[in-house]
Amino acid sequence: MNRKLKMAMIGGGKDAFIGAIHRLALNIDGQVELVAGALSINHEIAIQSGRELFLDEDRIYTDYKILLERESQLPTDKRIDFVSIVTPNFVHFDSAMMALEKGFHVVVEKPITFSLEEAKKLKAKVEQTGLSLLLTHTYTGYPMVKQAKEMIKSGIFGKIKKVFVEYPQGWLSSFIEDKNPQAAWRTDPKKSGISGAMGDIGTHAFNLTEYVTGLKTIELCSMLNTVVEGRNLDDDGAVFLKFEGGATGVLIATQIAAGEENNIKIRVYGEKGGLEWKQDDANSLLIKWMNKPAEIYRAGSGYLSSFAASNCRTPAGHPEGYIEAFANHYRNFMLTIQAQKNNEQPKKEWLDFPSVDEGIRGMAFIENAVASSKSNQKWTKFLI
Amino acid sequence: MNRKLKMAMIGGGKDAFIGAIHRLALNIDGQVELVAGALSINHEIAIQSGRELFLDEDRIYTDYKILLERESQLPTDKRIDFVSIVTPNFVHFDSAMMALEKGFHVVVEKPITFSLEEAKKLKAKVEQTGLSLLLTHTYTGYPMVKQAKEMIKSGIFGKIKKVFVEYPQGWLSSFIEDKNPQAAWRTDPKKSGISGAMGDIGTHAFNLTEYVTGLKTIELCSMLNTVVEGRNLDDDGAVFLKFEGGATGVLIATQIAAGEENNIKIRVYGEKGGLEWKQDDANSLLIKWMNKPAEIYRAGSGYLSSFAASNCRTPAGHPEGYIEAFANHYRNFMLTIQAQKNNEQPKKEWLDFPSVDEGIRGMAFIENAVASSKSNQKWTKFLI
Amino acid sequence: MNRKLKMAMIGGGKDAFIGAIHRLALNIDGQVELVAGALSINHEIAIQSGRELFLDEDRIYTDYKILLERESQLPTDKRIDFVSIVTPNFVHFDSAMMALEKGFHVVVEKPITFSLEEAKKLKAKVEQTGLSLLLTHTYTGYPMVKQAKEMIKSGIFGKIKKVFVEYPQGWLSSFIEDKNPQAAWRTDPKKSGISGAMGDIGTHAFNLTEYVTGLKTIELCSMLNTVVEGRNLDDDGAVFLKFEGGATGVLIATQIAAGEENNIKIRVYGEKGGLEWKQDDANSLLIKWMNKPAEIYRAGSGYLSSFAASNCRTPAGHPEGYIEAFANHYRNFMLTIQAQKNNEQPKKEWLDFPSVDEGIRGMAFIENAVASSKSNQKWTKFLI
Amino acid sequence: MNRKLKMAMIGGGKDAFIGAIHRLALNIDGQVELVAGALSINHEIAIQSGRELFLDEDRIYTDYKILLERESQLPTDKRIDFVSIVTPNFVHFDSAMMALEKGFHVVVEKPITFSLEEAKKLKAKVEQTGLSLLLTHTYTGYPMVKQAKEMIKSGIFGKIKKVFVEYPQGWLSSFIEDKNPQAAWRTDPKKSGISGAMGDIGTHAFNLTEYVTGLKTIELCSMLNTVVEGRNLDDDGAVFLKFEGGATGVLIATQIAAGEENNIKIRVYGEKGGLEWKQDDANSLLIKWMNKPAEIYRAGSGYLSSFAASNCRTPAGHPEGYIEAFANHYRNFMLTIQAQKNNEQPKKEWLDFPSVDEGIRGMAFIENAVASSKSNQKWTKFLI
Repeated sequence: MNRKLKMAMIGGGKDAFIGAIHRLALNIDGQVELVAGALSINHEIAIQSGRELFLDEDRIYTDYKILLERESQLPTDKRIDFVSIVTPNFVHFDSAMMALEKGFHVVVEKPITFSLEEAKKLKAKVEQTGLSLLLTHTYTGYPMVKQAKEMIKSGIFGKIKKVFVEYPQGWLSSFIEDKNPQAAWRTDPKKSGISGAMGDIGTHAFNLTEYVTGLKTIELCSMLNTVVEGRNLDDDGAVFLKFEGGATGVLIATQIAAGEENNIKIRVYGEKGGLEWKQDDANSLLIKWMNKPAEIYRAGSGYLSSFAASNCRTPAGHPEGYIEAFANHYRNFMLTIQAQKNNEQPKKEWLDFPSVDEGIRGMAFIENAVASSKSNQKWTKFLI
Repeated sequence: MNRKLKMAMIGGGKDAFIGAIHRLALNIDGQVELVAGALSINHEIAIQSGRELFLDEDRIYTDYKILLERESQLPTDKRIDFVSIVTPNFVHFDSAMMALEKGFHVVVEKPITFSLEEAKKLKAKVEQTGLSLLLTHTYTGYPMVKQAKEMIKSGIFGKIKKVFVEYPQGWLSSFIEDKNPQAAWRTDPKKSGISGAMGDIGTHAFNLTEYVTGLKTIELCSMLNTVVEGRNLDDDGAVFLKFEGGATGVLIATQIAAGEENNIKIRVYGEKGGLEWKQDDANSLLIKWMNKPAEIYRAGSGYLSSFAASNCRTPAGHPEGYIEAFANHYRNFMLTIQAQKNNEQPKKEWLDFPSVDEGIRGMAFIENAVASSKSNQKWTKFLI
Repeated sequence: MNRKLKMAMIGGGKDAFIGAIHRLALNIDGQVELVAGALSINHEIAIQSGRELFLDEDRIYTDYKILLERESQLPTDKRIDFVSIVTPNFVHFDSAMMALEKGFHVVVEKPITFSLEEAKKLKAKVEQTGLSLLLTHTYTGYPMVKQAKEMIKSGIFGKIKKVFVEYPQGWLSSFIEDKNPQAAWRTDPKKSGISGAMGDIGTHAFNLTEYVTGLKTIELCSMLNTVVEGRNLDDDGAVFLKFEGGATGVLIATQIAAGEENNIKIRVYGEKGGLEWKQDDANSLLIKWMNKPAEIYRAGSGYLSSFAASNCRTPAGHPEGYIEAFANHYRNFMLTIQAQKNNEQPKKEWLDFPSVDEGIRGMAFIENAVASSKSNQKWTKFLI
Repeated sequence: MNRKLKMAMIGGGKDAFIGAIHRLALNIDGQVELVAGALSINHEIAIQSGRELFLDEDRIYTDYKILLERESQLPTDKRIDFVSIVTPNFVHFDSAMMALEKGFHVVVEKPITFSLEEAKKLKAKVEQTGLSLLLTHTYTGYPMVKQAKEMIKSGIFGKIKKVFVEYPQGWLSSFIEDKNPQAAWRTDPKKSGISGAMGDIGTHAFNLTEYVTGLKTIELCSMLNTVVEGRNLDDDGAVFLKFEGGATGVLIATQIAAGEENNIKIRVYGEKGGLEWKQDDANSLLIKWMNKPAEIYRAGSGYLSSFAASNCRTPAGHPEGYIEAFANHYRNFMLTIQAQKNNEQPKKEWLDFPSVDEGIRGMAFIENAVASSKSNQKWTKFLI
């Protein structure tokens, strides 16, 4: 096969945020063509957005169901290979299920679904169809996050004992739901789910933690707060985590840390040393040792692990950022699909993208964190 | 009066750690002479240490009781003005009480006593005698910490909503009690008290929090861990804090974060912006705003508050550090004593040193954090 | 017009470096299709590279002359709009001239030509044809560099007095010409020109300086060194700069600073304050003031100038990097072409890309710096 | 001998700057008593300053000659061991010569004298008397600067090829000579000498360079500027340096970089790697390698060289600063004197303080840099 993949996008009209990010990320490597879209349920926005993206007029939709139906009837060489779902959370499940049923691979924004139960059903469908699903937990796409994971896995730090992870934002420090559509739907329980900050960015911190450490959470104790008056969901919180094997952690996710941007950060400590990675210096991985100098591993360097190296595009010192991290997930997902089309085994580095298992654990994290916050008991089992 | 103050030191022999730091700090401003010492209960160490500090042979003791007794019998112009107690925790209370009874001002290392009960008694004694007591919570001596406090107090950030404070160390990542005397006594419940990490450095983080924010803790939820096998006290922990007025916080204190040094750090967020200070960049105070550029306030600059400015010695860009922060407490304490001797009112900037109230809150923090950690209930009232 | 632009690439086969960067940069915004290529003069590499880029077999060439000839004969709606020239330096001039003659807009890697004389001829051709030319001096594509320029232009710092600019690399610290093709051609006077480091990266530093400050260099004094034995061009150098109006500067460009990556950095000082930008923290612009706190301007923030804001893709805190900076030049160039095709006036922000004037000044910089280095006289006039 | 050393101070009254810094530095280690002073030629200031420093009334002078005369007549156990000269530059030579003649060791602020010729005479006197002289080039007192020197000396970086050193200040960005006494004398050729910025802070950068690299400058090319109108000496400059053995360097010293504080910084590169140290992060030494991760050496760590380790007072992570660096020179100087008094060989770490040789090279640097700046010839031999 020697053609670009073809894709459609559900959501992501010109009035939306994350869809545009997805497009930057999927464009960068020149592996895919966006050929169809149900970019908005608003007809005018859908049309205008489609035109700006150079879509053929007859592949611009307002209803994703019609899009999926029609695309599934096109001949193989014309129809889409996959669909990206970038709508508010409450639409994820139905559209992903239908896409899978129609035979399309799926990319879906986090959190994967509206509820844990839906996530489980989606996993069953993925397994039944044998199709691929990419859940866009962006931060594990950074090469230095992959380097961190590999170094921990290698045992170089000894047994892992402690994790600190945090995602501080400030954009919801005051009540802006009435003037900011992003704020409006993300704090609306009907569109966003049972949690605000913990669901929106706590899940990223949680995913990053389990990815980097390889540890599974078994118990937690959370404090979720709704700091801004009139808000309908939590906008701030912290969670104590207990992992299999005895390590513990502290997870912070807040959207009311006025002045903070998006500096998600993780620190992990083993018996012999630790590491620190943060989005604000994304191309560095700081390695700390007990009795020798700390080291700075840098993206694009020759000494990186294969997982890190294969997710770098530029030489060391030419910074790659958020879009490239996002693009890494897309590229790995697309290389996997291409390999499968060609009946080849995808490389292990390509298969390293978040999918339904991460989705299920993320939804469980949300549900357990909310339950713990309401409970008077210190510790809540991490139920799935 | 135109003479240097005179002082004695209890503890701080050549085999100890913190006593040497105290001496650097008290020397720097040339306001005091060390004239007597019960530097060790070991005779040989006491003598050698005293000689190295140029003490007169007849003012070198092994028993602090004898020291205090004898000094109290000297004529006013010869005897000490105050005593610094830099022993392990279990000696603090008795020696401080006796010093006060003998009419000496007191400097005491944190935590102030072995128990909350002792701390209360010590406060009563201080009030009864009218003498001054300095509790050396070093970090509030940094000028940019004082700047932070003043800015929050001014209301520039609006109402405070959130605090993150942490003190990560790594030096106790493995069992070194058998070869490191510092590790030995600090993890020994008989010498250190009911908590290890939370008592040793969690109290610093707690003190820093209440000092900077001006908020009082009213409830907490803690997780204390003993990570290293064979250890007798907690070496790691985290605490959720609830403050009067509704703000919340997360406090982290660990001694098993392998590779970490002493980077105590605090972040505080109000409705309009926030601030960040950390020991690793102690001469900067980062101010973050919602819709305008962040600002970097720098020690030694002309625009600082009077509390910050009066605690700087060098122009901006010539870094001051830990010893100077420590020295600020000593200097303010000594200027207060000098003023009192001269029947003058000490400046408000001089009175800004930690004392018995901070000591009581610190001991209450330890006792409540330990109680919470043992409890199955989520929240524990902050009892004093 | 509602179609993507079409382009060809000259150079940039799979064995090359900068061509791949160009492709990442031009892909990201989804505004252009790569439809033809003379990617290598080696037939096999040309074919393989073309296939990997999904080119039609009949638009894969080894000779750019044939490519340009054939493309110029295609119907308007099929043929390319522009060509990107990413070959070693000695090919730039001929291919760019021919492309312009055939009616294609041109993108060309820096330095623009092999000599100043060629650059002048190229400028004449651009003016004669009315076509657009983009010279890819990447670093002025960064939004915070544009913010710096705008702030200086606004007069907020008073009159500019001093510039420090540097581009330290370490990759040529030893003789690797025999095993690294990039090193081989860049140090070969026949392919690279009369200067090595100063031509390759000194020109970036020079371009950044004149762009940010708006000052024109009028005199210089340089020291160029060939540090590594056996090398045929300078690999290290520094230049004192005198600008119109009296300001002065120091420019450093080296490729033998072992361990350095690509941390190009500029600092500019006026009467009232200064600024600092460096690629290693590309999303921040540090503003320093005489008597008030320094400020950190951040990419993606709401308070940026229109030139900076229109070159950001992500919200503050989601870092953009080198590829996006590169892409900004491409996007502005392409939006300009699109506007012209639609007979619209391009926005002033779109016209802000480096072109022939910057190319001429860059070549003059190389020639004057080389002349000065050879001269025993202190100062050399900046001749064009 | 078991007593503190005794000293006098010449200059350093309450209206001066650097004298107060000296006192902080010499106090910190508790090794010396300030017993006499000619702190000001103004009687009232001299008296007040002396009283504030707890000097006996009969050892407070206005004329250093009388001080030196009288002290030299006191019995050995009462009289001073050394004198610290902290006056403006033009007083250094006479007072230092007389002090040596009277048998006192000498500490003198940089630059050592008013002219190179004086420096040479002073060296002869030091050699003739066998007394010790400390020249307070503060920055080589930092432990991580010593670590840098030791690592370079060990050959770990291969042959040194390149040095970048800079000392940017901003405090003289406008004409403040009329209101700031520090500015007044430092820009007055009669009090300061033939150079302003290059003499005041360029000498620090030069001293740091030769100390850290062990290289001797043999040729230079300088550009000195007087940026601020009405000023009488250079306030800005840069120098190209050529060293014995072929390495080169760029030295920047400016006092008109508005907004800069005192961030003196040095970078040195050898064949295999390089290092970076700056005062703004004084407790770190960044080591960069060609093909492996950079390393961060930290003050107070267990792995440091003996020269670095013996100049640290606090454990890693408790920052030491400018005063401690200053104090290291004093301590090493005083330990050397004490050893000599006790007829012991001073440790090699103690002898590591700047003295007359550094003073001569510094004066030669000033004179050659001024000569080069006036010359039309590119290169000026470094004459001594």
